[in-house]
Amino acid sequence: MDLLSIKNPEFLKKMSNNELEKLSAEIRQFLIEKLSVTGGHIGPNLGVVELTISLHKIFNSPDDKFIWDVGHQSYVHKILTGRACEFDTLRQHKGLCGFPKRNESEHDVWETGHSSTSLSAGMGMAIARDLKKTKDFVIPIIGDGALTGGMALEALNHIGHEKKDMIVILNDNEMSIAPNVGALHNVLGRLRTAGKYHWVKDELELLLKKIPAVGGALASTAERVKDSLKYLLVTGVFFEELGFTYLGPVDGHNFEDLQENLRYAKKTKGPVLLHVITKKGKGYQPAETDTVGTWHGTGPYKMETGDFVKSSTKGPSWSGLVSETVRKLAKTDERIVAITPAMPVGSKLEGFASEFPDRMYDVGIAEQHAATMAAGLATQNMKPFLAIYSTFLQRAYDQVVHDICRQNLNVFIGVDRAGLVGADGETHQGVFDIAFLRHIPNMVLMMPKDENEGQHMVKTAIDYDLGPIAMRFARGNGLGVEMDKNLKAIPIGSWEVLREGSDAVILTFGTTIGMAMEAAEKLAEQEIFVRVVNARFIKPLDNEMMHSILSEKLPILTIEEAVLQGGFGSAVLEFAQEHKYYGAVIDRMGIPDEFIEHGSVAKLLEEIHLTADSAVQRIISMTPITEKRI
Amino acid sequence: MDLLSIKNPEFLKKMSNNELEKLSAEIRQFLIEKLSVTGGHIGPNLGVVELTISLHKIFNSPDDKFIWDVGHQSYVHKILTGRACEFDTLRQHKGLCGFPKRNESEHDVWETGHSSTSLSAGMGMAIARDLKKTKDFVIPIIGDGALTGGMALEALNHIGHEKKDMIVILNDNEMSIAPNVGALHNVLGRLRTAGKYHWVKDELELLLKKIPAVGGALASTAERVKDSLKYLLVTGVFFEELGFTYLGPVDGHNFEDLQENLRYAKKTKGPVLLHVITKKGKGYQPAETDTVGTWHGTGPYKMETGDFVKSSTKGPSWSGLVSETVRKLAKTDERIVAITPAMPVGSKLEGFASEFPDRMYDVGIAEQHAATMAAGLATQNMKPFLAIYSTFLQRAYDQVVHDICRQNLNVFIGVDRAGLVGADGETHQGVFDIAFLRHIPNMVLMMPKDENEGQHMVKTAIDYDLGPIAMRFARGNGLGVEMDKNLKAIPIGSWEVLREGSDAVILTFGTTIGMAMEAAEKLAEQEIFVRVVNARFIKPLDNEMMHSILSEKLPILTIEEAVLQGGFGSAVLEFAQEHKYYGAVIDRMGIPDEFIEHGSVAKLLEEIHLTADSAVQRIISMTPITEKRI
Repeated sequence: MDLLSIKNPEFLKKMSNNELEKLSAEIRQFLIEKLSVTGGHIGPNLGVVELTISLHKIFNSPDDKFIWDVGHQSYVHKILTGRACEFDTLRQHKGLCGFPKRNESEHDVWETGHSSTSLSAGMGMAIARDLKKTKDFVIPIIGDGALTGGMALEALNHIGHEKKDMIVILNDNEMSIAPNVGALHNVLGRLRTAGKYHWVKDELELLLKKIPAVGGALASTAERVKDSLKYLLVTGVFFEELGFTYLGPVDGHNFEDLQENLRYAKKTKGPVLLHVITKKGKGYQPAETDTVGTWHGTGPYKMETGDFVKSSTKGPSWSGLVSETVRKLAKTDERIVAITPAMPVGSKLEGFASEFPDRMYDVGIAEQHAATMAAGLATQNMKPFLAIYSTFLQRAYDQVVHDICRQNLNVFIGVDRAGLVGADGETHQGVFDIAFLRHIPNMVLMMPKDENEGQHMVKTAIDYDLGPIAMRFARGNGLGVEMDKNLKAIPIGSWEVLREGSDAVILTFGTTIGMAMEAAEKLAEQEIFVRVVNARFIKPLDNEMMHSILSEKLPILTIEEAVLQGGFGSAVLEFAQEHKYYGAVIDRMGIPDEFIEHGSVAKLLEEIHLTADSAVQRIISMTPITEKRI
Repeated sequence: MDLLSIKNPEFLKKMSNNELEKLSAEIRQFLIEKLSVTGGHIGPNLGVVELTISLHKIFNSPDDKFIWDVGHQSYVHKILTGRACEFDTLRQHKGLCGFPKRNESEHDVWETGHSSTSLSAGMGMAIARDLKKTKDFVIPIIGDGALTGGMALEALNHIGHEKKDMIVILNDNEMSIAPNVGALHNVLGRLRTAGKYHWVKDELELLLKKIPAVGGALASTAERVKDSLKYLLVTGVFFEELGFTYLGPVDGHNFEDLQENLRYAKKTKGPVLLHVITKKGKGYQPAETDTVGTWHGTGPYKMETGDFVKSSTKGPSWSGLVSETVRKLAKTDERIVAITPAMPVGSKLEGFASEFPDRMYDVGIAEQHAATMAAGLATQNMKPFLAIYSTFLQRAYDQVVHDICRQNLNVFIGVDRAGLVGADGETHQGVFDIAFLRHIPNMVLMMPKDENEGQHMVKTAIDYDLGPIAMRFARGNGLGVEMDKNLKAIPIGSWEVLREGSDAVILTFGTTIGMAMEAAEKLAEQEIFVRVVNARFIKPLDNEMMHSILSEKLPILTIEEAVLQGGFGSAVLEFAQEHKYYGAVIDRMGIPDEFIEHGSVAKLLEEIHLTADSAVQRIISMTPITEKRI
């Protein structure tokens, strides 16, 4: 059928399983084709084709509410709810969002990006439904990886206790982003290998009937009982003990099984957990055979071969630079232990892991545990390196405050994907970290201007033993600068002048330094000479340089790829106020007080006027000599 | 024995159980006596007397590491490690901390205050131990309430997977702060009633042997098998499935049982969970018979009767004012649902709960789930009231950003215990909320000047349907002002002038308004006339009034009981900068960039110079007319 003609999922109701099989193939072909151009989360979506179709066939969205945990597996849902025609714009500026988005469709009832929120959201919706006495179904769809997130476990616990009607679909695809971690995963693993059947209770009855009522040695009976125990245990007792009716596991690529179980779930009172086994990347060979997570989310690729379209990059990836420098230092510094919450690939820790397998911990999607475990290590004079994305560090805010900073422990936090991240959009922009880290006592926060300074900053962080230290760095790659052979620590709180100038000063760091240099260049053509300072320490500021600049009474422009409220620019304002530099002329550029949607970083920067031209304008408006000329 | 003479726990090694019994009684008497004067966490500590003694007898602290989850149950540990003589200063300024404190004793290896961190910390310590190849024991002691916290579950999962040697003591006292919630608690409940025995596996063998090998109907065999299944299930399988060796449950007040099990745990490889049943308040009748949590933590009381020493308060408690106003509004507004993470008593939601039992959810210690569940409710046009302490809201920062604010949902967050909280000290000070909420887009944040304005603000929050809104309020009681009969909404972003003045302006809100008024009074005596503004909206600011004040070129002093970095004062600086009021003379008072320890709020404010006198000095130093006079 013509996927582009789909307006809503109504048409599925009348389709036979054969027709659904055909539709699945078409959707797969569509996704493989479209994503080869735009990139996107191909693996997860190919895995849920049959599941999504079955959900829309058996239930009535939007009355019945599908809550897609994490949300990057909602492409099939988007196709079935009338958005196939928008896939050419997927994850592009003003285009189709890569996650559920409420303003895109009434079928998107909950927005995500971060994992493990669907059960809590579902509980809220179920409570609302019961208070309103309506009859709709609430259906969170959560992966086995997301289930290890603390808030999902909190919710599971509460839902089981309250016995609310809810159908939780456990989409067990064996591998979340990286191979999964944790005991819970072992339980799921055993479930997975326990074979295929429908309702565990019926099965148990069957098994029990096979126990010989007469004959057999005592020991052997005991053995059999134990086996049946084991069997029961590994098939859902974990969830049943929490108060759920456990159904499954079912083959997530078999329409008959899926629909039978979904219908049964519909009739079951109280919370149901339907365990669905799916295969990530199903139907596209390169993605299906992926074992490390390369095909979880990708850029453009050649459809026929699965070769990735290489983008031209100059420098090493930031994640790689940081992790590899940590690895280098770990050769001689035995205190170093690396920790990642489920992002060994994204954080490029594979090298570290293979060289130091006993000093590398992937704790799964568990940011809170990761941060506090790092603190625990630091109390024993170890030097934990917590590799974490800026946006996911948000989930460990309290742990950073209460456990790391309050105890002033030597934890090195590598804040990855800081600043705008582009295609993943507003749930993933790393724009809050300065505002939520800067006000925590004892914290040192820095950002390097290029990968060479970056490697020295890693050395700085490892050497620093006076408390927590965080280094933020951007998504993507470095500039391709020459790298020093020997690593050296940078004095804490020291800035450097990158370009001299006596008419105005730009204070900036990291990714926006290029913008500042370009602005200075342009202004020089107008004979306005701007000093550009690499304000690589966001906290503490370079007090000496601040005093010197403020004493010179030069206008100051701060630029940061982070929210303005409480950001670096505010730190500069605070400094000027604290030291009574009344009359200081300061302007700030950064992310305005709104959530920034998806799109290329360049496009987004332009839209929020975070550009060299804007810097030029702002400097001109502050510079008295310019006024005189006008 | 003389408890004051104890230097370290070494003396316990030689003591007989009879002597330990006697010691327990002495410790109980000591605690009941001392806490009757100072107040403190009496219930939890009376519950762990035998457990703490046994731990110190069987293990060797500080080589072996006791990690007290939450930490308010560490008084007995403090007595046994040589700090009995300091109990007169408990929770007082510069006195003994009510939580473990590393600078107090080498026996305090981990600091707490917030719950559920002990397992993650323990995992970090265990990893460090194994890398260093030392042989010490890591022993987190965690309550059944804290175990429902997401990060504890994350850690449990990871520890079970890694199979690290660790002895987790589950201190199951049936009631954390409020009666516990959640399915996990049901499991524990069943364990609790399952009787007393040592090792489940031995018991199972015994049970299995009782199954008749010959004879009996098939059905009856099946029944028996099921019963034994049940038996197994409810006794630790939950933990065994996660990879732990489960021991217990043991009577936490029986020295023989405790020591036997601790010795067994010591010999067991891999992670062990020892389930200990204790009675909160054990040995002090008023605390022992407490069913609601009144005796969890108290102020001073009369030892003989258990009557609390009433402190003289003028107004209603802030928590009560807010919760009761919400209850009033809920009578006619069916959208309102109240949510608390384990603090129904602290948040004074008992009245709401009894009037609207189906609209009140105590989710247990699960702040993340609470916040996102509120967001889920709001998507369905309900009006969730999330009652949460400022310090615990830190744990839901990402949920506030990603789920509530990003989706711009109508959640009303009641930020309780905002500002300094006094005796609980640095883990509990509510001083970060402005800095971590203000930079989130869509957030409205306010704080009332007194309980009358407070009730109108609750009305404001319930009426406001344009997104999230948070109201912070202090620990303790209101001022005793007259209360309006009718509730009215306050225009969002509107401030009010409390006192006129043309020489300078103080912008402040909430608890520091009294300080500002006092300063203004004192300054008037020196003929400096200060305008005092109730800046009740922290975000958004009152733009009109800000423009007017800045246009008048009056010096401005901001005062807030919150961290200065990124706080309200910074918002004022940002506004002045944004609107190019160069030359504005602004000064800010607030909490400096350090963690503030325990002590009375008055004492702490004095220490950080957050006083009326300090405001007077700062105004004088900014006011030109004063300069002329000198």
